[in-house]
Amino acid sequence: MTMKSLLMIMDGIGDIRENNRPTPLEAAKKPNMDRLAREGSLGLMHTLGRGIKPGSDTAHLAIFGYDILSEYPGRGPFEALGTEGIHLMPGDVCFRVNFATADRGMKIKDRRAGRIESASAKKLEKDINGMEIEKTKIIFRQTAEHRGVLILRGDRLSGRVSDTDPHDAGIKVKLSEPLDTSAEAKKTARILNALTNEVHKKLSNAPENLDRIRKGLPPANIILCRGGGEYFKVETFQERHGIKAACVAGGSLYKGIASFIGMDVVHVSGATGDRYSDYFSKARAAVQASKTHDLVFLHVKAGDSFGHDGNHEGKKGIIEKVDKDIIPMVSDNFDLIVITADHSTPCMMKGHSGHPVPILAYGKLVRKDDSKNFNEYEAAKGSIGQIVGEDLMQLMLNWMNKNNKIGE
Amino acid sequence: MTMKSLLMIMDGIGDIRENNRPTPLEAAKKPNMDRLAREGSLGLMHTLGRGIKPGSDTAHLAIFGYDILSEYPGRGPFEALGTEGIHLMPGDVCFRVNFATADRGMKIKDRRAGRIESASAKKLEKDINGMEIEKTKIIFRQTAEHRGVLILRGDRLSGRVSDTDPHDAGIKVKLSEPLDTSAEAKKTARILNALTNEVHKKLSNAPENLDRIRKGLPPANIILCRGGGEYFKVETFQERHGIKAACVAGGSLYKGIASFIGMDVVHVSGATGDRYSDYFSKARAAVQASKTHDLVFLHVKAGDSFGHDGNHEGKKGIIEKVDKDIIPMVSDNFDLIVITADHSTPCMMKGHSGHPVPILAYGKLVRKDDSKNFNEYEAAKGSIGQIVGEDLMQLMLNWMNKNNKIGE
Repeated sequence: MTMKSLLMIMDGIGDIRENNRPTPLEAAKKPNMDRLAREGSLGLMHTLGRGIKPGSDTAHLAIFGYDILSEYPGRGPFEALGTEGIHLMPGDVCFRVNFATADRGMKIKDRRAGRIESASAKKLEKDINGMEIEKTKIIFRQTAEHRGVLILRGDRLSGRVSDTDPHDAGIKVKLSEPLDTSAEAKKTARILNALTNEVHKKLSNAPENLDRIRKGLPPANIILCRGGGEYFKVETFQERHGIKAACVAGGSLYKGIASFIGMDVVHVSGATGDRYSDYFSKARAAVQASKTHDLVFLHVKAGDSFGHDGNHEGKKGIIEKVDKDIIPMVSDNFDLIVITADHSTPCMMKGHSGHPVPILAYGKLVRKDDSKNFNEYEAAKGSIGQIVGEDLMQLMLNWMNKNNKIGE
Repeated sequence: MTMKSLLMIMDGIGDIRENNRPTPLEAAKKPNMDRLAREGSLGLMHTLGRGIKPGSDTAHLAIFGYDILSEYPGRGPFEALGTEGIHLMPGDVCFRVNFATADRGMKIKDRRAGRIESASAKKLEKDINGMEIEKTKIIFRQTAEHRGVLILRGDRLSGRVSDTDPHDAGIKVKLSEPLDTSAEAKKTARILNALTNEVHKKLSNAPENLDRIRKGLPPANIILCRGGGEYFKVETFQERHGIKAACVAGGSLYKGIASFIGMDVVHVSGATGDRYSDYFSKARAAVQASKTHDLVFLHVKAGDSFGHDGNHEGKKGIIEKVDKDIIPMVSDNFDLIVITADHSTPCMMKGHSGHPVPILAYGKLVRKDDSKNFNEYEAAKGSIGQIVGEDLMQLMLNWMNKNNKIGE
């Protein structure tokens, strides 16, 4: 029996009622998901444990069966791994980077250099990529608009350094500080600070920036680094769970996490990781990937973004779009479908929260319950009960009958 | 958003139906609590884990997010910390003490010296306090009636010694024994036994006792020690959870636990820790404390005492009194209200049990469920599900939006 399974993570989709207003999941018209709920079962999942507010990266790792205390490398490596053409080596220290605009005193005037267009930012990439400081190679890649990734490659570096990004305009770029007393952390902070200065000098005179100034645009004359972390190898998803998995996602973070654990990352043109993402193409890519993989991880980002904006209507709309564009195709083609989230992003909180996320499981080895509607409140009564993130892969393996017997 | 939260522990309030008789929580008329249940959500809590019968002290520690295996100092230090004017130093070994009546052969005739009144017992305090044995300072404080606390202060002592209290009349005072093979435990047991002998000699000739004998009252001529433990410092509640907490309680044990973890202990005249306690004053003190603290721990003892007596009617009455005197005031003044217990004290068992306790959470970040009535049986269907004690603070931090994000 070959069981093809889909794990669809609707980022941040969990919510709470504000003054009795139904949540986006309650309010959305989603006949296809609700049919799966009627024929399957529901539950609640605390991805990192009860009451804990997860980041997207740690939540996904936990859901995939990894220990965030010992197997979480930080955000930087995930972003780097999710960037096309970047190949990491163990020991590489990675950061997320913003191009920003600073004055001569290194005070930040715009944290995104006026949301510089990709074409303009791309021209500045070569001024940074390939530099060398203290025998450490600087690898830099602009990714989208003002965003990029930075990798320090050399001996004896550490991810335990603080951000240079002040996370606000109007203040000076921060000095990176070692976060422990190791020589590696001190060296890495020193390199990052020297790099920041050199890049500021170089970019201030870069032709593209002089051109921007002439056009009245803010120059992208500094880089701000955050989310530092050291890359290391972990046991792959297939080694750990015995099944082969593919990832269909738009956002680089999610592709990076998948890549970190050795999932095959499928490229889908039209999967942008934002509200305009082509869900129909993603669904088709997921079905395609299922022919060569046991499990397909399909990530849908936009619900989280709308939650961060407090946009209830937008979040509801994304659910309806997923219901229309993704569910019919996947429900015809997968034997097991699990729909859940990495964390809640309640509209009234405009940020992540520790409220458990609903989980829906549909498949012929799933015991059905009395659920009628896929939402947070009905999920609290579902027969899956309340689980934690690290339970999920075991449950899915059981619903796929791919779990090994313990004992005889 | 400043969220003020109340954690009300109704000691021993959980119960079970005896021959279908509704539990005190089911039988009590408590419209205010039931309104909170309707607008909030319920669940069950196993404070120390499923089926484990908790003591009040360990249960409270677990609820506050402490590990009872490594952070529980024993009952003695809590009682000492809850006694006004006592300041402990790390390494102090503390006991709960009873004044008792012994014959010349040290056989106990009355474990409470005829429930000696406080005024009479107080006169005997100075005969014990200030003694010194093996360079160890003896600190003794009579607290209420026959009760008191004893502290041994000196080098190389241990809390790992057995009680001298035989826990029954008609038998001899026990010799304290070391509970491990350490020199410290041997020394401490030796000191405690020497102290018991010397105190018996001294008190037998104390004028107050000669006077009691003349009046036909049993002399308080010996002390019985129990619950030995060594005081040590732990991370404070604020260090651990990032929020500032105050304690409103009558009983010295609860004040002692709060003090152990660095909560501010509010003195409330009229809070006696028994059935005559002034709940209205306690509610007012809790509201007052919320102005300077993020969380107020409000302890109500009497339900447990009635449970120990098997007094169903009394337990029900306490719930109704709390509903009338405490809930209206606190529900107007707190953003988050959690009502629960440290353990069940079922009337039919006249003692603690490992049955889970009901938990009620009410606040705008709490997902409501279908609950209508706050009791053990409805709580089993609530959306909080079944939690353990150590989950509670994380859940409360989430409902206050005071939890830190793990990951990005």
